[in-house]
Amino acid sequence: MIVEMSRTVNAHQLEQLLKSLSEQHGPVHPVSLDGRTLLVCPKALGPVADFDQHPEVLRTVHSTGPFHLAARALYPSGSRVRVGGVEIGGPGFTVIAGPCAVETEEQLAAAAEAAISAGAVLLRGGAYKPRTSPYEFQGLGELGLRMLAGQRHLSGLGTVTEATQPDEVALVAEWADMVQIGTRNMQNFPLLKEAGRAGLPVLLKRGMTATVDEWLCAAEYIMSEGNPDVVLCERGIRAFGRETRFTLDLSIVPTVKRLSHLPVIVDPSHSTGDPALVGPMTLAAAAAGADGVIIDVHADPAAALCDGRQALLPEELKSIIDDLDRVTAALGRPLVRQPARAALPI
Amino acid sequence: MIVEMSRTVNAHQLEQLLKSLSEQHGPVHPVSLDGRTLLVCPKALGPVADFDQHPEVLRTVHSTGPFHLAARALYPSGSRVRVGGVEIGGPGFTVIAGPCAVETEEQLAAAAEAAISAGAVLLRGGAYKPRTSPYEFQGLGELGLRMLAGQRHLSGLGTVTEATQPDEVALVAEWADMVQIGTRNMQNFPLLKEAGRAGLPVLLKRGMTATVDEWLCAAEYIMSEGNPDVVLCERGIRAFGRETRFTLDLSIVPTVKRLSHLPVIVDPSHSTGDPALVGPMTLAAAAAGADGVIIDVHADPAAALCDGRQALLPEELKSIIDDLDRVTAALGRPLVRQPARAALPI
Amino acid sequence: MIVEMSRTVNAHQLEQLLKSLSEQHGPVHPVSLDGRTLLVCPKALGPVADFDQHPEVLRTVHSTGPFHLAARALYPSGSRVRVGGVEIGGPGFTVIAGPCAVETEEQLAAAAEAAISAGAVLLRGGAYKPRTSPYEFQGLGELGLRMLAGQRHLSGLGTVTEATQPDEVALVAEWADMVQIGTRNMQNFPLLKEAGRAGLPVLLKRGMTATVDEWLCAAEYIMSEGNPDVVLCERGIRAFGRETRFTLDLSIVPTVKRLSHLPVIVDPSHSTGDPALVGPMTLAAAAAGADGVIIDVHADPAAALCDGRQALLPEELKSIIDDLDRVTAALGRPLVRQPARAALPI
Amino acid sequence: MIVEMSRTVNAHQLEQLLKSLSEQHGPVHPVSLDGRTLLVCPKALGPVADFDQHPEVLRTVHSTGPFHLAARALYPSGSRVRVGGVEIGGPGFTVIAGPCAVETEEQLAAAAEAAISAGAVLLRGGAYKPRTSPYEFQGLGELGLRMLAGQRHLSGLGTVTEATQPDEVALVAEWADMVQIGTRNMQNFPLLKEAGRAGLPVLLKRGMTATVDEWLCAAEYIMSEGNPDVVLCERGIRAFGRETRFTLDLSIVPTVKRLSHLPVIVDPSHSTGDPALVGPMTLAAAAAGADGVIIDVHADPAAALCDGRQALLPEELKSIIDDLDRVTAALGRPLVRQPARAALPI
Repeated sequence: MIVEMSRTVNAHQLEQLLKSLSEQHGPVHPVSLDGRTLLVCPKALGPVADFDQHPEVLRTVHSTGPFHLAARALYPSGSRVRVGGVEIGGPGFTVIAGPCAVETEEQLAAAAEAAISAGAVLLRGGAYKPRTSPYEFQGLGELGLRMLAGQRHLSGLGTVTEATQPDEVALVAEWADMVQIGTRNMQNFPLLKEAGRAGLPVLLKRGMTATVDEWLCAAEYIMSEGNPDVVLCERGIRAFGRETRFTLDLSIVPTVKRLSHLPVIVDPSHSTGDPALVGPMTLAAAAAGADGVIIDVHADPAAALCDGRQALLPEELKSIIDDLDRVTAALGRPLVRQPARAALPI
Repeated sequence: MIVEMSRTVNAHQLEQLLKSLSEQHGPVHPVSLDGRTLLVCPKALGPVADFDQHPEVLRTVHSTGPFHLAARALYPSGSRVRVGGVEIGGPGFTVIAGPCAVETEEQLAAAAEAAISAGAVLLRGGAYKPRTSPYEFQGLGELGLRMLAGQRHLSGLGTVTEATQPDEVALVAEWADMVQIGTRNMQNFPLLKEAGRAGLPVLLKRGMTATVDEWLCAAEYIMSEGNPDVVLCERGIRAFGRETRFTLDLSIVPTVKRLSHLPVIVDPSHSTGDPALVGPMTLAAAAAGADGVIIDVHADPAAALCDGRQALLPEELKSIIDDLDRVTAALGRPLVRQPARAALPI
Repeated sequence: MIVEMSRTVNAHQLEQLLKSLSEQHGPVHPVSLDGRTLLVCPKALGPVADFDQHPEVLRTVHSTGPFHLAARALYPSGSRVRVGGVEIGGPGFTVIAGPCAVETEEQLAAAAEAAISAGAVLLRGGAYKPRTSPYEFQGLGELGLRMLAGQRHLSGLGTVTEATQPDEVALVAEWADMVQIGTRNMQNFPLLKEAGRAGLPVLLKRGMTATVDEWLCAAEYIMSEGNPDVVLCERGIRAFGRETRFTLDLSIVPTVKRLSHLPVIVDPSHSTGDPALVGPMTLAAAAAGADGVIIDVHADPAAALCDGRQALLPEELKSIIDDLDRVTAALGRPLVRQPARAALPI
Repeated sequence: MIVEMSRTVNAHQLEQLLKSLSEQHGPVHPVSLDGRTLLVCPKALGPVADFDQHPEVLRTVHSTGPFHLAARALYPSGSRVRVGGVEIGGPGFTVIAGPCAVETEEQLAAAAEAAISAGAVLLRGGAYKPRTSPYEFQGLGELGLRMLAGQRHLSGLGTVTEATQPDEVALVAEWADMVQIGTRNMQNFPLLKEAGRAGLPVLLKRGMTATVDEWLCAAEYIMSEGNPDVVLCERGIRAFGRETRFTLDLSIVPTVKRLSHLPVIVDPSHSTGDPALVGPMTLAAAAAGADGVIIDVHADPAAALCDGRQALLPEELKSIIDDLDRVTAALGRPLVRQPARAALPI
């Protein structure tokens, strides 16, 4: 249960309300979200109807948990997240593209050009790379972030990049438009909390065996620190199959959208690990109701320092987005286009 | 490796060829498929090139196994299966609909009408139902088959129905247009062999934890008995998720189509177990490259004797197929329409 | 809910009871088990207490389903199954050993000798082999059954062998002491029913992704046809792991024993697919509370026609059973020894 | 491939060797482990035999990766880890027990007494708790660490407690004897690296869907920072089963011991989530070859702030360890006993 306060509530009123709420309904967690104060009562399973009449209570929202701020009941028409001038979760379908890892300025520039030419509107690229082995390329770190920021300036594309520990979040917030929490960190709770305090949108990948409750509780960690701008990303689960790297779970998209107001995108590259499957799975993600996709592209996949196996060539990306354009039109969700300012970078 | 013989090969030539093939390449399995003799050499991993020159050898086909007749190399442009006047695997997208189980003539007639009105072109309905508990409704058996045949006559719709043991296959062949092998029977090898000898098309559902190799080897069991008309059906795998009944594995569709020439359809009803997910998953199946879908519909789902939980209402089915029509058009694979004769049943 | 009748109940009394039970508690399924009539009322979730007083009612058993005859409530102290003079589910721990498939009389004789020398008390060996590919060795069929019966005669060991379709059950019953239902057939319901009517003990392997409810409902299919002699066998589930052939799920043993009165054994050979793991997993199965194990042994694993990869050599089997002897003694469940008659075969 | 240097190698020799190694075998990672310098050459798949003759090279170790320092080839007879005066991985079997979370001094004292009375030799207790929901008890933090240190002083038991982010590792090192990396953090690479630099033994729980390669690569992250004292802990995987909280994967124990020299223990509490299964699974873990177990115990499970559902009562723990004593004796691995100093805390 959530109690949403008016903007005019004063400290004294709030204190009194907290007191009587907690007496009747157990612990109360006040959260400041989008300039409003929300009082989350995780144990109040029944209605807190008597508070509806309070002059400073805008509404009480029925949510039975385990997640509350992430529940669809809070924003029944869905929430939208703005990243670098582009919207995710609105009427259009948003394509993010870029290399798995930032390697060099040239590589990043080529990927950004491929993204723009194909019709993508946000640029991905990792500077901190969580790698299975300590002997693999671990990312360029802050240097990579700076390269990404440079490319944002040149191309006009908003940027998405990963943080792997709390300390890195502030750096990412300084240099990029959206911070990604990777699948291995979906339950890295200190990192989630830091992302909740950082003031930039968060792309929250699903843990490779996360249930929906666990995923939305991870979003709740971010939101309960005051950050409403969370985009979920399905990226494949670990099942028994060996033909693809992971098993893309597309039915989770409509399942999550029913339970939560948060936008959901799909990663067809990391889930399949196979460039030949990225096209079909991109179209299928759109048809399943996703709000966007995030796709790996690299001008020279064979030379990539990280996960090159699954990266598309620029022309492959373009061909897929051309197909996607027709499908999203038929679905009534046209592709989100690059805002005009992007055409005039200096 | 497969050696395909000309139609003019005589018994003596065949015998000689078998002898020299088996001497050089291990056991040989002769299969008669579509009027041609194919010699399957499962151990011949390398090329059997020296046989290419044989006057009665049309071609040798490189297949490394474990499946051979089901391998795409045999029919690189894909195979098509005709069922009740309708094609699966051709340029169009085929919709099968009907109730989970045949219950009464009225129920079946209502479902058939719903299927036709919505735009489906084949009718499903089970007479032999594999049920988890012995105390659940087990299907009407032969009576159900006869009802289904009656409805075929009245509606003009070709029919698909399940056999659960070898004895039932001949009965199904007598009364229906396509025999279904269910997920629990995907490795019921005596049943597969019988389906291979029965002379009617087979809908082979994927076992709920079958790998691609196991699935295509199951198809190979059917084909190696002489039946080329196999349609594969993805119907959800068993993973850790609890939000849906099974986890629909759509990336298996392009994966299998790359490995095999057989048509692949998707069952969005039994996989999700949730009518609200059937629409998105139907569109996603088409976008992923499937050749069709098979959907549960029931005029009164709450009264259904079997799996009513997931059945669509007639108007829901129609609404989904309307959406599907736009998506398949955008994909360049228009919906397969009911052949003209269906409009004039006697 | 189950109503257990006295042995003296007459047809008229039974009919009346059936009538009033079904009026009050929905459908009733009469089952004749061990000479007693049991009335299974799957929908009677609450107590059927008013029937307790009926003079011909011995007791009513509370079982909430989905399984009833397999529920521990029916025989709270556990049931025991006798096979070839040996008990499974009693105070001792039972070892079954033998080759995956019957190949030749010599091979079978060597395996039987290995089994006896090591301390196993029942002989396994398949005549009907469910194989993934149609081109693999499919078993010797009836000839294999006859060889197995010959070896039973010579060695005195009771025998276990698989049936893969209903027709084969009667043949197995003629030539062997226990019929096995394999993992791929756990939900082959016509086969289960036939096994329920065949009058010999059944070894019911767990489906590789069967839940406990599905497994015990499969046992219920057998029992509801009148056969009380079902032994369950955990043989590994399909999870994401690739180091072993399947993932042995030992915690299912105490879980099932809590829910069901049926004996449970473990197959460490087919689950791991690795001879080096058979020893540790055999000991672990005993420690987890299993009633026995079934182990593959072959005098020449490399030459085996089926699953030789995982078969133990005779001396490896002996070494493992020696270790097992100490562990089962510590657990208070000594190894079941070969009955005396076995020493004097004619 | 690993090249192990003598202790007398000097900086100049090392530099030369690094140079020629990297020229011939790609990147070299020097690691200081137990006072020796090891040069890890992850790309040197073949032997680096020519270096064997170098006067300062003690030996070259063949390891094909992806893990090297964790490979059994490095210490073929297995490694032992000392924690608070007790050994894990030696000839005996080690029992760790304690509450899931440190709650109060009284609760911890009661749990420590239960642990000692039952025969456990190390005390577990979490101060930083990774919880699915942000509204659940998150642990006492540093206060909890201090309580744990107090209890170590009073009871003489060495202590194990979790760190959930890099910053917490130094605190844990200050107050406890062993730092635990939880399942959700198995691929939290910054945390692993910090644990590698912290100078205290690490208990590395397996990620709930980690493959063996991923698990041992996580250990490699710790070891490659210079910490040889890693103990692995199997704690259940996420599969389709719903009867237990996770699926305990005991066959991973002998699998990992074959591949790695690191000790392996088992957590029967968190894996099953069911106190009735902790006993059988503890015995099974010992029988499968584990080096120890870690068990939840709580004097009042119903009042526990975290995971009380699975905690044993003190008398249940004692009963299980009594059984375990007999089984480990039969296995030839007697229980590790509390060292004498523990009897005389000041």
